Amino acid sequence: MKIIDRHQLIDQLNWRYATKQFDPTLKISAQDWAALEEALVLTPSSIGLQPWTFLVIDDPTVRAKLLLASYGQPQVVDASHLVVFATKANYSIADVDAHIRQAAKVRGVSVESLDGLRSMAVRSVVQGMNETERRNWAVNQTYIALGNLVTSAALLGIDAAPMEGFEKGRYDDLLGLKARGLTASVLAAVGYRKDSDKYASAPKVRFPRAEVVLHV
Amino acid sequence: MKIIDRHQLIDQLNWRYATKQFDPTLKISAQDWAALEEALVLTPSSIGLQPWTFLVIDDPTVRAKLLLASYGQPQVVDASHLVVFATKANYSIADVDAHIRQAAKVRGVSVESLDGLRSMAVRSVVQGMNETERRNWAVNQTYIALGNLVTSAALLGIDAAPMEGFEKGRYDDLLGLKARGLTASVLAAVGYRKDSDKYASAPKVRFPRAEVVLHV
Repeated sequence: MKIIDRHQLIDQLNWRYATKQFDPTLKISAQDWAALEEALVLTPSSIGLQPWTFLVIDDPTVRAKLLLASYGQPQVVDASHLVVFATKANYSIADVDAHIRQAAKVRGVSVESLDGLRSMAVRSVVQGMNETERRNWAVNQTYIALGNLVTSAALLGIDAAPMEGFEKGRYDDLLGLKARGLTASVLAAVGYRKDSDKYASAPKVRFPRAEVVLHV
Repeated sequence: MKIIDRHQLIDQLNWRYATKQFDPTLKISAQDWAALEEALVLTPSSIGLQPWTFLVIDDPTVRAKLLLASYGQPQVVDASHLVVFATKANYSIADVDAHIRQAAKVRGVSVESLDGLRSMAVRSVVQGMNETERRNWAVNQTYIALGNLVTSAALLGIDAAPMEGFEKGRYDDLLGLKARGLTASVLAAVGYRKDSDKYASAPKVRFPRAEVVLHV
């Protein structure tokens, strides 16, 4: 375990900001990008169920189409990488079973030995929620991945801008998500800021700590 | 800017796990805890609106009561710190105005000069969503903070276990959240693992990267 200093953490979280202008000439190295993908994969989720898929939009033609469904926000085409955080729209028993099979494989145990875990997941997520609740639950998990990505990128000195301003239905159509049982939840444009982005130096607006962190 | 190496990031994300047993004798230092609170405050959110409050439960009597509303999961009382992530239940124009006042203060500009931002926030969040959608939106933001906290803690070598298994209504009652316009969304138990926690060394179960990260 090689930990970092708390000042370094806070410095990097202060360094990051909601990047408006990405430098389209600056690309994240393959090694750093692989690390950020690995960070996404390592995101924790409720009961470990990972009800998500992360789409990385490499094709400039697809990016150009998505731009039209993103109110023309240039980050969609200018950032080195664009991640569409997609969520399982109707998490099912088949999804639980896929997780259980993977768990059995990774842990070197039989699927049957994980029956208790399976029942618990089926009961609490599939049977215990209606479709809307289940989708909300899955979207919540997806946002953990977003928070993880933004912080991970900041630590690597890479800019990441979360974006909710896009037309989800059009994204679903353009990326064929419905056929995969997915729906677009949120985006992150990831890359390197342009020096000219005036927002980079604007003071961060946050409520004072004493107002948002209450001790009980 | 002092960035970290990608291997260090991935090592720490692999080091973390959903801690089941916290060592109740190990407390996070005041300095490290202050850094984690600052990390929470620095979490990005949609339009910067921060529709959340983070409650840190210091009082052991309150923790003992919350344990009864948490299916007896010992992390609630054993972890060095317990954070209840509370969300604004019905984000309102008054909330937008509080943000605008804070933005004006931090940026040294008049409230009037931020009229465009105010209108956009009112239009998209308050008027553009019904109460349920608005609550879901606010809960989503809260989960960004959870993702940020878990990753930030891991980098400091501190264990953080997200927890959804608790009775939200009882938490709201016990902590008087309703009267503050808040509702409990999710928890994080934060502290140091017990050496005897067998889950610490269990291989992490994740779908293969090629299955959850798709290139388009």
